[in-house]
Amino acid sequence: MVSKNQLKLITSLQQKKYRNANKLFFAEGVKGIQELLDSNFELEHLYSTKNDFSKVSKELKTIISDDDLKKISALATANSCLGVFKMPAEKPIVETGLILALDSIRDPGNLGTILRLCDWFGVEQIICSKETVDLFNPKVIQATMGSISRVNVNYIDLKAFLVETNLPIFGTFMNGENIYKSKLPKKGIIVLGNEANGISNEIEELIQNKVTIPRFGVAQKTESLNVATATAIVLSEFHRVS
Amino acid sequence: MVSKNQLKLITSLQQKKYRNANKLFFAEGVKGIQELLDSNFELEHLYSTKNDFSKVSKELKTIISDDDLKKISALATANSCLGVFKMPAEKPIVETGLILALDSIRDPGNLGTILRLCDWFGVEQIICSKETVDLFNPKVIQATMGSISRVNVNYIDLKAFLVETNLPIFGTFMNGENIYKSKLPKKGIIVLGNEANGISNEIEELIQNKVTIPRFGVAQKTESLNVATATAIVLSEFHRVS
Repeated sequence: MVSKNQLKLITSLQQKKYRNANKLFFAEGVKGIQELLDSNFELEHLYSTKNDFSKVSKELKTIISDDDLKKISALATANSCLGVFKMPAEKPIVETGLILALDSIRDPGNLGTILRLCDWFGVEQIICSKETVDLFNPKVIQATMGSISRVNVNYIDLKAFLVETNLPIFGTFMNGENIYKSKLPKKGIIVLGNEANGISNEIEELIQNKVTIPRFGVAQKTESLNVATATAIVLSEFHRVS
Repeated sequence: MVSKNQLKLITSLQQKKYRNANKLFFAEGVKGIQELLDSNFELEHLYSTKNDFSKVSKELKTIISDDDLKKISALATANSCLGVFKMPAEKPIVETGLILALDSIRDPGNLGTILRLCDWFGVEQIICSKETVDLFNPKVIQATMGSISRVNVNYIDLKAFLVETNLPIFGTFMNGENIYKSKLPKKGIIVLGNEANGISNEIEELIQNKVTIPRFGVAQKTESLNVATATAIVLSEFHRVS
């Protein structure tokens, strides 16, 4: 059974302010939860409709009904389990190799997909402007498929960081140099912008290398690529030469 | 006002069988509707909370309340308008340039994103197995951002088509040739597989050229890329040489 207090706590964790206040977040589904457990995220409590996760101690798990799971779930169709985890302390920024900088990415699915792409391409560090969607948003956790444990994410004053850094700064624009013809380094920062407005003016000023994914369509009507698919192409280009 | 019959009809269009029976589908939001109007999709009726779309004749539009829009909308947060359109007749398959073949893509967001990518990269033809999510699903329409008017999509017996074709057939696999080192033609078919199971065995047998997007991550734990981001990278690779 899920007590009233537990229900209240877990549903509150759908909101960033309560996640931060309680230093807790949750993940749903066997695969995502298992990934977090394997990656030494500290489990606060596990709620499951089945007697699974045999390695989790009895004190830390409760078998609940489908109805109770539905109440605590953030998904339209609840999975079979939900795990509440302790939010880890933010680690220092790792300035090796490529760093992805996100300037106000708002869609949780996009952030999750971008994290998964970074994991695939071995990008270990993402820095986010403070306006970027929260990493511990349940929809982000859902979309990362466990990559959250392998990519370091920091929320910072992006402008201040870019002013200070010695790394070359790249950004995607509609009117930059053809990315297929650009010389791309193995160390640097790649900035990606907001879904609707792209990279903000104050950040654009700090970008020395503007690159563009050329459009091949005849109609030339597609306005832009989705930011996650643009990230896929950009990371692919930065890596194909290595 | 939206009559009971209109409400019943529009909500029924969320289901494929009623879309096919009525030969109608709908789009939401000014931008998507405008794209369809500009692309000569035939409007059946427009419902808007504002007196907009001045070029649409009076007989074809109804101003409705926010509450009524909420009732007919398929979105969690309704937009300001919903347009019901006539479903165009399927056009013959165009065998020029690259053709994307989708083997049971199930997620509407993925199909929409893939369509947008095809539009960007000038791929004019998508062929889908019959199990692939329906093009006129409201969530697909939402995700295409108008690209639906510029990419031809056919639902066919994919196996039979691949058996008959003279074009080279490519497919993405975990154990194929490094795509960055593969010789990629300007004419051919690229097969992409289901989100959970990849390309089916019966289709795999017909693929002469298996390619892989190499994983650069050290942990080597990311199981796979999302099919839409994989499509982005594959289409980018096929085009960068041209």
